[in-house]
Amino acid sequence: MDYLAWVAVASILSSGICIGIGAIGPALGEGRALAQALSALAQQPDEANTITRTLFVGLAMVESTAIYCFVVSMILIFANPFWQFFLARAGEGG
Amino acid sequence: MDYLAWVAVASILSSGICIGIGAIGPALGEGRALAQALSALAQQPDEANTITRTLFVGLAMVESTAIYCFVVSMILIFANPFWQFFLARAGEGG
Amino acid sequence: MDYLAWVAVASILSSGICIGIGAIGPALGEGRALAQALSALAQQPDEANTITRTLFVGLAMVESTAIYCFVVSMILIFANPFWQFFLARAGEGG
Amino acid sequence: MDYLAWVAVASILSSGICIGIGAIGPALGEGRALAQALSALAQQPDEANTITRTLFVGLAMVESTAIYCFVVSMILIFANPFWQFFLARAGEGG
Amino acid sequence: MDYLAWVAVASILSSGICIGIGAIGPALGEGRALAQALSALAQQPDEANTITRTLFVGLAMVESTAIYCFVVSMILIFANPFWQFFLARAGEGG
Amino acid sequence: MDYLAWVAVASILSSGICIGIGAIGPALGEGRALAQALSALAQQPDEANTITRTLFVGLAMVESTAIYCFVVSMILIFANPFWQFFLARAGEGG
Amino acid sequence: MDYLAWVAVASILSSGICIGIGAIGPALGEGRALAQALSALAQQPDEANTITRTLFVGLAMVESTAIYCFVVSMILIFANPFWQFFLARAGEGG
Amino acid sequence: MDYLAWVAVASILSSGICIGIGAIGPALGEGRALAQALSALAQQPDEANTITRTLFVGLAMVESTAIYCFVVSMILIFANPFWQFFLARAGEGG
Amino acid sequence: MDYLAWVAVASILSSGICIGIGAIGPALGEGRALAQALSALAQQPDEANTITRTLFVGLAMVESTAIYCFVVSMILIFANPFWQFFLARAGEGG
Amino acid sequence: MDYLAWVAVASILSSGICIGIGAIGPALGEGRALAQALSALAQQPDEANTITRTLFVGLAMVESTAIYCFVVSMILIFANPFWQFFLARAGEGG
Amino acid sequence: MDYLAWVAVASILSSGICIGIGAIGPALGEGRALAQALSALAQQPDEANTITRTLFVGLAMVESTAIYCFVVSMILIFANPFWQFFLARAGEGG
Amino acid sequence: MDYLAWVAVASILSSGICIGIGAIGPALGEGRALAQALSALAQQPDEANTITRTLFVGLAMVESTAIYCFVVSMILIFANPFWQFFLARAGEGG
Amino acid sequence: MDYLAWVAVASILSSGICIGIGAIGPALGEGRALAQALSALAQQPDEANTITRTLFVGLAMVESTAIYCFVVSMILIFANPFWQFFLARAGEGG
Amino acid sequence: MDYLAWVAVASILSSGICIGIGAIGPALGEGRALAQALSALAQQPDEANTITRTLFVGLAMVESTAIYCFVVSMILIFANPFWQFFLARAGEGG
Repeated sequence: MDYLAWVAVASILSSGICIGIGAIGPALGEGRALAQALSALAQQPDEANTITRTLFVGLAMVESTAIYCFVVSMILIFANPFWQFFLARAGEGG
Repeated sequence: MDYLAWVAVASILSSGICIGIGAIGPALGEGRALAQALSALAQQPDEANTITRTLFVGLAMVESTAIYCFVVSMILIFANPFWQFFLARAGEGG
Repeated sequence: MDYLAWVAVASILSSGICIGIGAIGPALGEGRALAQALSALAQQPDEANTITRTLFVGLAMVESTAIYCFVVSMILIFANPFWQFFLARAGEGG
Repeated sequence: MDYLAWVAVASILSSGICIGIGAIGPALGEGRALAQALSALAQQPDEANTITRTLFVGLAMVESTAIYCFVVSMILIFANPFWQFFLARAGEGG
Repeated sequence: MDYLAWVAVASILSSGICIGIGAIGPALGEGRALAQALSALAQQPDEANTITRTLFVGLAMVESTAIYCFVVSMILIFANPFWQFFLARAGEGG
Repeated sequence: MDYLAWVAVASILSSGICIGIGAIGPALGEGRALAQALSALAQQPDEANTITRTLFVGLAMVESTAIYCFVVSMILIFANPFWQFFLARAGEGG
Repeated sequence: MDYLAWVAVASILSSGICIGIGAIGPALGEGRALAQALSALAQQPDEANTITRTLFVGLAMVESTAIYCFVVSMILIFANPFWQFFLARAGEGG
Repeated sequence: MDYLAWVAVASILSSGICIGIGAIGPALGEGRALAQALSALAQQPDEANTITRTLFVGLAMVESTAIYCFVVSMILIFANPFWQFFLARAGEGG
Repeated sequence: MDYLAWVAVASILSSGICIGIGAIGPALGEGRALAQALSALAQQPDEANTITRTLFVGLAMVESTAIYCFVVSMILIFANPFWQFFLARAGEGG
Repeated sequence: MDYLAWVAVASILSSGICIGIGAIGPALGEGRALAQALSALAQQPDEANTITRTLFVGLAMVESTAIYCFVVSMILIFANPFWQFFLARAGEGG
Repeated sequence: MDYLAWVAVASILSSGICIGIGAIGPALGEGRALAQALSALAQQPDEANTITRTLFVGLAMVESTAIYCFVVSMILIFANPFWQFFLARAGEGG
Repeated sequence: MDYLAWVAVASILSSGICIGIGAIGPALGEGRALAQALSALAQQPDEANTITRTLFVGLAMVESTAIYCFVVSMILIFANPFWQFFLARAGEGG
Repeated sequence: MDYLAWVAVASILSSGICIGIGAIGPALGEGRALAQALSALAQQPDEANTITRTLFVGLAMVESTAIYCFVVSMILIFANPFWQFFLARAGEGG
Repeated sequence: MDYLAWVAVASILSSGICIGIGAIGPALGEGRALAQALSALAQQPDEANTITRTLFVGLAMVESTAIYCFVVSMILIFANPFWQFFLARAGEGG
C-alpha cells in the first residue's frame, strides 16, 4: 500500500508547482496588456468602448493559459485517475 | 503510519513554494498596470473615471492568478484530500 | 506491480511541469500582442475591424502552443498508453 | 516520534522560503508603481488627489500578494494543521 | 521486464519537458511578430493585404519549431520505437 | 534528542536565506522609487512637499515586505514554536 | 541485456531535451526577423518584393538551426547507431 | 556532542550566504538612486538642498534592508540562541 | 563489455545537449542580423545588392558556429573514436 | 576532533562565497553612480563641487554593503567564535 | 582497464558541452556586429568598402573565440593526450 | 591527518570561486563608468581634468571590491589560519 | 594507479568548461565594440584610420581574456603539472 | 598518498572555473568601454588623444580584474602551497 503514498506525494508537489509557475506568465502578460490599455484610453478616450471590449476579450484569452494550469492542478488533487485506481485496488483487498 | 508524515511534509513544502513563486508574477503585473494607470491619469485627468474603472476590473483579473495559487495553497494545507484519506485510514485502524 | 506506481508518479509530475512551464510563453506572447493591438486601436481607430480580426486569428495561433502543452498534459493523465499497458497487464494476472 | 521533527523541519524551511521569495515581486511592483506616481505628480500636480488615492488603493492590491505569502508563512509556523495532528497524537500516547 | 517501466518513465518525462520548454520560444516569437504586425497595420492600413499575408506565412514558419517539439512529444508517447521493441520482446516470452 | 539539532539547523538556514533573498526586492524597489522621486523633485521643485510625503508613505509600504521577511527570520531564531516544543519535551525527560 | 534499456532511456531523454531547448532560439530569432519585416513593409511598401524575398531566404537559414536539432532528435530515435549495435548483438545471442 | 558541530556549520554557511546575497539588492538600489540624484543635481542645481536631503533619508531606508541582513548574520555568529542552548547543555554534562 | 554502454549513453546525451544548446546563439544572432537587414532595405532600397550580399556572407559566418556544434554532434554519433575503439576491442575477443 | 575540520571547511567556503557574491552588487551600483556622475559633470561643469561631494558620500554608503560582506568574511576567517570554541575544547583535552 | 572508459566518457561530455556553450557568445556577438554593419551600410552607402572590410576582419576576430572552443573540442575527441596515454598502457599489457 | 586534505581542497575551491565570481561585478561596473567617461569627454572636452580625476578616484573605489575578493582569495591560499592550525598540529605529532 | 584516471578526468572536464564559458564574454564584448565601430565609421568616415586603429588595439585587449582561458585550457591538457607528477611516479614503479 | 590526488583534482577544477567565469566580466566591461570610445571618437575627433589615453588607462584597470583571476589560476596550477606541502611530505616517506 506504499504506492498510495508515493502517488499522493507526487500529486501534491506537482499541483503546487504547476499553478505556482503557471501563474507567472499570465499575470505578467495581463499586466502588460492592461497597462497598454490604460495608456490607449488616455490617448484616445473616444475609443473607450472598442478598447475595453478588445481588452477584456483578450484578457480572457490570456487568462485561459492560467486556467489550464489551474485545471490540471485541480485534476491532480481532486480527480486524479492514478490515485483513484490505487484507491480502488486498495479497497478491493490491496 | 509513515505515510501521514510524508504527505504532511510534501503538503507543507508544496504550499509554501506554490504561493511564494506564484506571488511574483501577479505583483509585477499589477505594479506595471498601476504605474501606467497613474501615468495615464496625469496625462488625461478628464478620463479619470474610465481609467480607474478599467484599472480595477483589470487588476481583479490579474489578482485572480494570485488567488488560484492561494486557493491551491490553502487546499493543500486545510482541505488536502490525500491527507484526509490517510487520516481516515489511520483512524480506522492504521 | 511496482511499475504501475512509477509510471503514475512520472505521469503526474510530467503533466504538472509540462503545462506549468508551457503556459509562460503563450501568456507573455499573447499579452504583448494584445498590448500592441490596443495601442494600434488608439492610434488608428478607423482600422479597428482589420486590427481585431488579425489580433484574434494571431492569438489563436499563439494559443495553439499552449494547447499543445495542455493536450500532452491531458494525454499523460487520461490517455497515457504506458499506463494503460501496465494496467492491462496487471489486470491479466500481473 | 520521528514524524514531529520532519514536519517541523519542513515547516521551518517552507515558511522561510515562501516569504523570502514572495517578497521580491510585490516589492518590485510597488516600487515601480510608486516611481511612476511620483513622476505623474511632478507632471500634473493638480491631480495629486486622484493620483495618490489611486496609488494607495492599487498598492494595497499589490501588497495583498505579499500578504498571501505572509499568511501562509504564519499558518505554517503557528497554525500548522499537520503539526497539530502529530502533536495531538504524540500527546495521546505516541 | 523491468526495462519496460524505465522506458515508459523516461518517455513520459521527456515528452512533457520537450513540449513544455519547446512552447516558450515559438509563443514569444509569434507574440512579437503579431504585435509588430498590428502596429504596422495601424501605421499603413493600405498595405493590410501584404502585411497579413506575410504575417501568416511567417507565423507558420515560427509555428513549425513548436510543431517539431509536438511531433517529437507525440512520437515519444505513441510511436516510441524503443517502447515497441521492448513490448515486442516481452510479448515473445520476455 | 537528535530532533533538537535538526530543528536548530533548519531554523538557522531558513532564517538566513529568508532575509537574504527577501532583501533584494524591497531594496531594488525602494531604489527605483527614490531615483524617480529625485528626478521629479528636479523637474517640479514646487511640489517638493507632495512628492516627499508620497515618497515616504510609499517607501514605508515597500519596506513592509522587507519587514515581513525580517519578522519571519526573527520568529525562526527567537520565537520558534517548533524549537520550543522540542525544548520543552527535552526538559521533561527527553 | 541491460544495456539496451540504458541506451533507450538516454536516447529518449536526449532527443526530447535536444529539440525542446533547440526550438527556443530559432523561434525567437524568426519572430524578431518577422516583426522587423512587417515594420519594414509598412515603412516602405514599394520594396515589398525585395523585403519578403530576403525575409524568407533568411528565415530558411534561421530555420536550419532548428532543423539540425530536429535531425539529431530523429537520428537518436529512429537511426541511433548505438541502439542498432546493441540490438544486433542481442539478436545474435546476447 | 555532534550537535554542536552541525549547528556551527549551519550558522557559518547561513551567515555568509545571508549577507552575501543580501548585499546585492541594496547596493544596486542605492547605486541607482545615487545616479539619479547626480543627474537631478546637474539638471536643477538650485534644488541641491532638497535633493541631497531626500537622497540621504532615502538611502538610509534602502540601507536598512542591508542592515537587516547584517543583523541576522551577526546574530547567527555571535548571539545564536541555538548554539548557546547546545553550549549550555554541553557544559552541564553533554 | 559494460564500457560500450557507458560510452554510448555519454555520446547520446552529449550530442543532444551540444546541438540543443548550440542552436540558441546562432538562431538569435541570425534573427537579429536579418531583422536589421530588412530595416536597412526599407531605409535604403537602392543599396539592396550590397546589403543582401553582406547579409548572406555574414549569416554564413554566424551559421558556422551552429555547424561546429552540428559537426561535433555528428562526430559523437557516427564517427566517435572512443566508441570505435571499444567496438574494435569487443570484436577481437572482449 | 573531527569537528574542527568541518568547522574549518565551512568557514573557508562560506567566507569565499560571501565576499565573492557580495562584491557584485556594490561594484555594479558604484559603477552606475560613477557613470552618471561623469555625465552630470559634463552637463553642468559649474556644479562640480556639489556633484563630486554627493558622489563620494553616496559611494561610501554603497561601499558599506561591500564592507559588511568583507567584515563577515574576515570574522569567519580570523575571529570565528565557533572555531575558537572547538579549538579551546580541543586544547583542554579533546 | 576501467580507466579508458572513464576518460572516454569525460572527453565525450566535455567536448559536447564545450562547443555547445562556446557557440552562444560568438554567434550573438557576430549577429550584433552584422546587424550594425547593415544599418551602417544603409546609412552611409559610400563607405561600403571600409565598412565591409572592417566587418570581416572583426568577425574573424570574434570567430576566433568560437574556434578556440572548436579546437579544444576536437583535441578532446581526436588528440586527447590522456586517452592516448591510457591507450598506450593498455596496449603494452594493461 | 585526513583533515589537512579536506581543508586544502576547500581552500583551493573557495579561493578560485571567490575571485572568479567576484571579478564580474567590478569589471562590469568599471567598464560602464569608463564608457560614460569617454562619452563625457567627447561632450565636454574642456572639463577633461575634472572628469578624468573623478573617474580614476571612482574607479579605485570600484576596484576596492575586486581587491576585497583578491585579498580573501590570497588569505585562503597563503595565510589560511585553519590550514596553519592543522599544519602545526600535524607537525607536533599528528 | 587510480589517481592518474581521476586527474585525467578532472583535466578534461575543466579544460572544456573553462574555454566553453570563457568564450562567451569576449565574443559578446568584441561583437559590441565591432558593432559600434561600424556605426562610428558610417557617422564619421573621415576618422576611419583612428577608429579602426583604436578598434583593433582594443579588440586585442578584449581577446586577451579569451586567450587567458585558452592558455589555461591548453596547460590543463598538454602541460598539466599534476598529471606529469603522477605520470612520473607511475613510471618509477607505481 | 590519496591526498595528493584530491588536491590535484580540486586545483585543476578550481583553476579552470576561476578563469572561465572570471573572463566574462572584464571582456564585457572592456567591450562596452571600447564601443563607447569609438562612438566618442566619431563624435569628437579633435579629442582623439585624450579619449584614447583615458581609454587605455581605464582598460588596464578593467583588465586588472581579469589578471587577478589569471594569477589565482596560475598559482593554483604552478605554485599551489597545498600541493607543495603534500608533495614534500610524500617525498619524505609518504
